[in-house]
Amino acid sequence: MKQIDLNCDLGESYGNFRVGQDEQMMPYITSANIACGFHGGDPTTMRKTVRSCLSYGIAIGAHPSLPDLAGFGRRAMAVSAEEVYDMVLYQVGALQAFVRAEGGILTHVKPHGALYNMAAQNRALADAIAKAVYNLDHSLVLFGLSQSELIRAGEQIGLKCANEVFADRTYQKDGALTPRNKPESMLTDANAAAKQVEQMLEYGTVKTVDGDEIRIKADTVCLHGDGKHAALFAKVISQYMLEKGYTLKRKR
Amino acid sequence: MKQIDLNCDLGESYGNFRVGQDEQMMPYITSANIACGFHGGDPTTMRKTVRSCLSYGIAIGAHPSLPDLAGFGRRAMAVSAEEVYDMVLYQVGALQAFVRAEGGILTHVKPHGALYNMAAQNRALADAIAKAVYNLDHSLVLFGLSQSELIRAGEQIGLKCANEVFADRTYQKDGALTPRNKPESMLTDANAAAKQVEQMLEYGTVKTVDGDEIRIKADTVCLHGDGKHAALFAKVISQYMLEKGYTLKRKR
Amino acid sequence: MKQIDLNCDLGESYGNFRVGQDEQMMPYITSANIACGFHGGDPTTMRKTVRSCLSYGIAIGAHPSLPDLAGFGRRAMAVSAEEVYDMVLYQVGALQAFVRAEGGILTHVKPHGALYNMAAQNRALADAIAKAVYNLDHSLVLFGLSQSELIRAGEQIGLKCANEVFADRTYQKDGALTPRNKPESMLTDANAAAKQVEQMLEYGTVKTVDGDEIRIKADTVCLHGDGKHAALFAKVISQYMLEKGYTLKRKR
Amino acid sequence: MKQIDLNCDLGESYGNFRVGQDEQMMPYITSANIACGFHGGDPTTMRKTVRSCLSYGIAIGAHPSLPDLAGFGRRAMAVSAEEVYDMVLYQVGALQAFVRAEGGILTHVKPHGALYNMAAQNRALADAIAKAVYNLDHSLVLFGLSQSELIRAGEQIGLKCANEVFADRTYQKDGALTPRNKPESMLTDANAAAKQVEQMLEYGTVKTVDGDEIRIKADTVCLHGDGKHAALFAKVISQYMLEKGYTLKRKR
Repeated sequence: MKQIDLNCDLGESYGNFRVGQDEQMMPYITSANIACGFHGGDPTTMRKTVRSCLSYGIAIGAHPSLPDLAGFGRRAMAVSAEEVYDMVLYQVGALQAFVRAEGGILTHVKPHGALYNMAAQNRALADAIAKAVYNLDHSLVLFGLSQSELIRAGEQIGLKCANEVFADRTYQKDGALTPRNKPESMLTDANAAAKQVEQMLEYGTVKTVDGDEIRIKADTVCLHGDGKHAALFAKVISQYMLEKGYTLKRKR
Repeated sequence: MKQIDLNCDLGESYGNFRVGQDEQMMPYITSANIACGFHGGDPTTMRKTVRSCLSYGIAIGAHPSLPDLAGFGRRAMAVSAEEVYDMVLYQVGALQAFVRAEGGILTHVKPHGALYNMAAQNRALADAIAKAVYNLDHSLVLFGLSQSELIRAGEQIGLKCANEVFADRTYQKDGALTPRNKPESMLTDANAAAKQVEQMLEYGTVKTVDGDEIRIKADTVCLHGDGKHAALFAKVISQYMLEKGYTLKRKR
Repeated sequence: MKQIDLNCDLGESYGNFRVGQDEQMMPYITSANIACGFHGGDPTTMRKTVRSCLSYGIAIGAHPSLPDLAGFGRRAMAVSAEEVYDMVLYQVGALQAFVRAEGGILTHVKPHGALYNMAAQNRALADAIAKAVYNLDHSLVLFGLSQSELIRAGEQIGLKCANEVFADRTYQKDGALTPRNKPESMLTDANAAAKQVEQMLEYGTVKTVDGDEIRIKADTVCLHGDGKHAALFAKVISQYMLEKGYTLKRKR
Repeated sequence: MKQIDLNCDLGESYGNFRVGQDEQMMPYITSANIACGFHGGDPTTMRKTVRSCLSYGIAIGAHPSLPDLAGFGRRAMAVSAEEVYDMVLYQVGALQAFVRAEGGILTHVKPHGALYNMAAQNRALADAIAKAVYNLDHSLVLFGLSQSELIRAGEQIGLKCANEVFADRTYQKDGALTPRNKPESMLTDANAAAKQVEQMLEYGTVKTVDGDEIRIKADTVCLHGDGKHAALFAKVISQYMLEKGYTLKRKR
């Protein structure tokens, strides 16, 4: 039985400021990572996004960030492991409250932006995140960059982890994503993205920007919810995978 | 069996900014209302305060506020009932996460500052707070100004409520607190405060600033944790009540 | 010589969060009110907006707000006159720095959202704003709701003031704007808005929602920069007024 | 004529949160670096601090920071040179408005915390700060770590610069301050601090923690305004230098 989990970052609007095409993405995804107020996502947006996701049967995860609204959580900060533990616990707890109040269950946690990248490489920070998630709820699934320090930290502490890959990002020889400031960092063709996803799921490999093929672990596939063609991409990729015999299935 | 619950607002420091004499208050109180980040209380302060309270056996409550760090949550804002529901759920959930991660149980919720005062009089906002607390966890106790709209809202939705009185604040004929900008608003003598507490607990009455005596319901007594003599006040009042045959006992 | 000043609130984006169609509005307006960071407008957005406005020859004003990013400055807050004085000075100074650094001159100040409405009715707050503007720079023009307390406060302290009217908002018998939550609050037809502007400028009157005609003073006309048809509205109105023999001209 | 400028970071309180012994420091210092809202210093605190400094004849500088209130501006952030330019301009402009409104003149700019340290080593960020200061007002003096990249950036663009040394911090062989987490980072004896200041001013040298003597340029001496003995330190050092024949004199 071939399965695929398609996840998307949602609920990143903030008050009067709207970002993302959340409603258009929901038909195509199985897991949502919902912003928790630090890079986007005011309390009202959080509640509404949780409610919508539950109505679609989408698995709800928390998407905690560094405290940087102006920078959208994308600027690395010299935070201590202790601070990271605390800020993750704070944000995951806040989101969990909305999920509970709506009668749902929080299923996973995926760090956002700079925190995601820092946790992929810095084991102390990765451990802090894993510990915060574990101490709050052992049954939460930890999403992290495929085969990164965050995945190792999560597995070591005893969490179920999901190696995340990206449908529309290109990869480098060492398995890292091509930085966004490089022209070849994104796949702009939906079919090419769909085929990259298929290869990652089917064969556990991905072609790098240099033409090499490297091994990659793909437990969940990230689709981007912003950009003009986000919903179209999501539609193309999900249909392509369904045609290839995959079932869309949440991690938990 | 005569019992008294002494509560105090704690954990209101924020990063490098220290307020309150938290550690000195802990020996004398049975319940703590811990700030949740909106008027004070960064994530690290929240965790440390939760940990300290648990070590003292102090009941831990959330102390949610309007989003106004610069105004310390003391400036009324024209927020909708929906926004209040969401901001309370957010903050209570955030604090609850720290309590759970430390192996404790969140016992109560008490709104802070302007939100507390608004909820005492505005039933729609009071209902929003009560509903947020109830939807998150039916067993939480709701602290509110004695005999206020917040207490009525909590009781109507089915929450256990605690009518709060103040040891060192004076009362007006209509049961309202004397506004802080009036000279007679505070009792500055610890013994006078202790006697006011005794009268409220023992007889269910309080003497007003005009010399009248009005009825008041006292389920929990608030002690202030700031001010030079906060810990001394707490000590005098708790010892006085112990001598009068009361047992210090948390609401839950 | 018949003149008209068309103003628009610009630069309200915040970091990754985009709002408004700033660039599309610039060809049609003579004055811009630029957000200063409290309800929108991070420093980088401020600089870029200032630069664009200067390239169009648009008069640059500061658009200070209550400190409420989540509420976009639209929620009234119980701030003191002293706090208003300070927050206006802070924000106007911040924007002025960008204008100076680009070699331009700050020409006016227009409070935003809830602060604008509060200052229209509350003379103490109006005086605080007028005093902040005056103390910073006597030559700044103060924009306020036509014939409101803010205009009176500005005139009394010695500032040049601009009575502001709205092209696409409807008016009530007492000269107040019809509240936004009422269906008839907006003019949705660009030609109707253009004609309302013409009547206000040409005859100093406006037709109210009840069909009455009241007197109104129109020194500057506000065009909204958000909404799907913002730029079209701006184009229609500016062309209509040009055809009627008006010259588009900034207040200073 | 031997002169010394004693500077101190002031106005770092935020709303209800009090830090520093500002009033006690003012009799002993000639220059103040006033927080601008990003790491401390709400608008009301800014105005009051400016007013006090003017009454003491203290030179007023802006003390801009990274946007990190919870971290007190002490956590490095991956900000771009463009963002630094913008955030410095914003903050300096805001403070300048208070100084002007009080009839004073802003004299200097000194970056705070992590921004200060980043600018000492990273030339691109140092250039951004220097350019922001220069573009706002050519006559401002730029304070930076003695002989650092920030000083070089300021001098290159044409600003008058002040090499800053620290009375109570120890130095390493390469001229860097001993990191705060090392036990020997601080001089805890006021007389030792006074003598270090004398040596730096009189001979242009300082003894390092390893016992070496290195050359150092001392145009302005930083005194810390927090800590229990801050005012005492300030008093001892200023009196010591007066006795040695120095005149306390602001840089501008």
